[in-house]
Amino acid sequence: MKVYLDNAATTAMDDRVIDAMIPFMRDHYGNPSSVHSFGREVRTAIERSRKKVAELLNATPAEIFFTSGGTEADNTAIVCGIESHGITHAITSPLEHHAVLHTLEMCEKKGHIKLSILDVNEKGELDMNQLEELLKANPKSLVSLMHANNEIGNLNDLNRIGSLTKEYGAFFHSDTVQTMGHYVHDMKSLPVDAIVAGGHKFHGPKGSGFLYVKKDKKIHPLIHGGAQERNMRGGTENVIGIIGIAKALEIAYEDMAEHQVHIEAIKKHFIQSLTQEIPGVSFNGLSADIDKSLYTVLSVSLPPSEANSGMLLFNLDLEGISASGGSACSSGATVGSHVLRAINHTPDRDAVRFSFSRFNTIEEVDYTVGKLKELYAVEA
Amino acid sequence: MKVYLDNAATTAMDDRVIDAMIPFMRDHYGNPSSVHSFGREVRTAIERSRKKVAELLNATPAEIFFTSGGTEADNTAIVCGIESHGITHAITSPLEHHAVLHTLEMCEKKGHIKLSILDVNEKGELDMNQLEELLKANPKSLVSLMHANNEIGNLNDLNRIGSLTKEYGAFFHSDTVQTMGHYVHDMKSLPVDAIVAGGHKFHGPKGSGFLYVKKDKKIHPLIHGGAQERNMRGGTENVIGIIGIAKALEIAYEDMAEHQVHIEAIKKHFIQSLTQEIPGVSFNGLSADIDKSLYTVLSVSLPPSEANSGMLLFNLDLEGISASGGSACSSGATVGSHVLRAINHTPDRDAVRFSFSRFNTIEEVDYTVGKLKELYAVEA
Ligand SMILES: Cc1ncc(COP(=O)(O)O)c(C=O)c1O
Ligand SMILES: Cc1ncc(COP(=O)(O)O)c(C=O)c1O
Repeated sequence: MKVYLDNAATTAMDDRVIDAMIPFMRDHYGNPSSVHSFGREVRTAIERSRKKVAELLNATPAEIFFTSGGTEADNTAIVCGIESHGITHAITSPLEHHAVLHTLEMCEKKGHIKLSILDVNEKGELDMNQLEELLKANPKSLVSLMHANNEIGNLNDLNRIGSLTKEYGAFFHSDTVQTMGHYVHDMKSLPVDAIVAGGHKFHGPKGSGFLYVKKDKKIHPLIHGGAQERNMRGGTENVIGIIGIAKALEIAYEDMAEHQVHIEAIKKHFIQSLTQEIPGVSFNGLSADIDKSLYTVLSVSLPPSEANSGMLLFNLDLEGISASGGSACSSGATVGSHVLRAINHTPDRDAVRFSFSRFNTIEEVDYTVGKLKELYAVEA
Repeated sequence: MKVYLDNAATTAMDDRVIDAMIPFMRDHYGNPSSVHSFGREVRTAIERSRKKVAELLNATPAEIFFTSGGTEADNTAIVCGIESHGITHAITSPLEHHAVLHTLEMCEKKGHIKLSILDVNEKGELDMNQLEELLKANPKSLVSLMHANNEIGNLNDLNRIGSLTKEYGAFFHSDTVQTMGHYVHDMKSLPVDAIVAGGHKFHGPKGSGFLYVKKDKKIHPLIHGGAQERNMRGGTENVIGIIGIAKALEIAYEDMAEHQVHIEAIKKHFIQSLTQEIPGVSFNGLSADIDKSLYTVLSVSLPPSEANSGMLLFNLDLEGISASGGSACSSGATVGSHVLRAINHTPDRDAVRFSFSRFNTIEEVDYTVGKLKELYAVEA
């Protein structure tokens, strides 16, 4: 049995997404910047995709810029947000993805900003008082705090953070890579200046992404060249990527509530079974708190075990089960996770992130719990 | 009849490229950074693609970095080349693509470099003496001069420019977007530090590209995040883009000589027929000089005509013929071409770029010349 429980790393593409892309590989190959018929039909398809994404987010097409992925979108929001708005101080947390942390560290190293990093507790919750103090002291900061953590699943309250940033005139970027396509983002009501998406996290193509920037917070491009993306990103468009991410988001919004119910049931069942079957199991961050964490992520902490220590992912892989230790999409499992370090996860326990999609089933969870039970029974 | 003569803007994908990509849409969806089986099979495919590209360029895999396209690769070479090597002066020409010119202008505006722009004559030839003088005065410059111009087809002598840059210890980046897959680039012998590619210019996918950087000229990343591309570019890889560009380059190298013969015959026939049929026709830059220009590009200057002035591309499009005025991939035909301006093309003549691929035929050229003859006969 092959069980894929690493959907926070990447997801299988939806067949309907593939079917939407293929005509733009086989037939409609024009350059969208060309004024002739070959170009115009592709330009139309791109702008239709932009309009679709904008509608779903309750935004305007002029606020949506397609990128090569979540990482490029994060980099653009941060680097160009800082440059375009004359920002000299930024606030983030130690739990952010490297696309945010490394980018901010680079900006600090270049002397463009001073960087403040919020304290977090052992559950990965942010110190909101500290955030307000920092904003008071540095009103026009850039604040970059993710919507949901990719390793432990903690959801941050974007409304609460956003209201604070508004109060102090800060630029608020939120890395929404893990929530896009899984939660509704209503940009008319959400007090966030910039959010991002990576298509492959919701059954779209890898190499596709977008950046939303609020109309009144315009920023400069990161990649310079032609006039594509309304002068916001040079380079011939990744047409199939754009078609694909828009289609994937459309599908995600269509059945979002239903899929949430399905996946939440899987997650709850997983928590119950693990608690029952593996003595000493616990859960990292807020990931076992259904209301305060991504419904797609469960971060499990397993009791010390000689047979499995450092080998757990490998042992699971041998049984056909794909999961992740820390974040597969940044540094892989071989380098320790900066997120688990920041919440003081003890290194003598193994941490595994299981992450779900609408394609998973209860049977797969039962199979996985069964295998875990065997692996940990050996020693018992 | 539909005739696509805009292959310098973009090309139709090769079916073999599409066939190589589709399994990575349908079946092999793992994140290449994941350590489990789903991830490893994709990682293997990416590294195989990198090895293939490296072999074709007579380079090493560690010198090849996949990007989202030619523009991102140009930006990376320039911005990060300047930063990583402490460069304070750059030399370029007014005929470069906006991916180079706008990037260098931005670096100058930020105060990172002083920018020198070479003189060119009315044929678009660079002033090589001036280049040497500038290098003498500013030995550790960044030199960015393209291999072939996308609008008028002029080929620059990379060996000659490269030797000069070596002599003065400069960093030499060449925008090879228009020659990659059409000419052999042997990086063991070519004295160039960084070259780039965009897959869609040689029957690969849009949104794919790569950057070659010589081993001893290492540069920092432009996009920060995970450890992908040996820490040179954060972000989950565009897997299908990488598979596609490598396959497209492989195919291009397989039949390169044969295709060159085929396309050159088309270009020669086009030049002859136009000269015969359209009194007053001329050719821009060196594009009618077979040995000194891209065999894929012919830039035609048509005599003043009231019926066609400003309407020529539109009139051709009505007849099913796709061509370009200036460069479709940067600013479109509506904004004047900076290249034609730099070589003093008179605005009362219409300029059209016809560009060819191995999918074009002599019949298509005859059809096009026939239509041009009709369009220009109206007034005669
Ligand atoms: C010479 C040259 N450089 C750079 C580019 C940019 O490539 P892309 O738009 O694929 O990023 C192009 C064409 O688009 C080009 O012709
Ligand atoms: C929270 C978060 N941010 C950013 C990224 C980067 O996205 P990508 O690798 O698709 O560019 C990821 C995952 O990869 C993520 O989980």
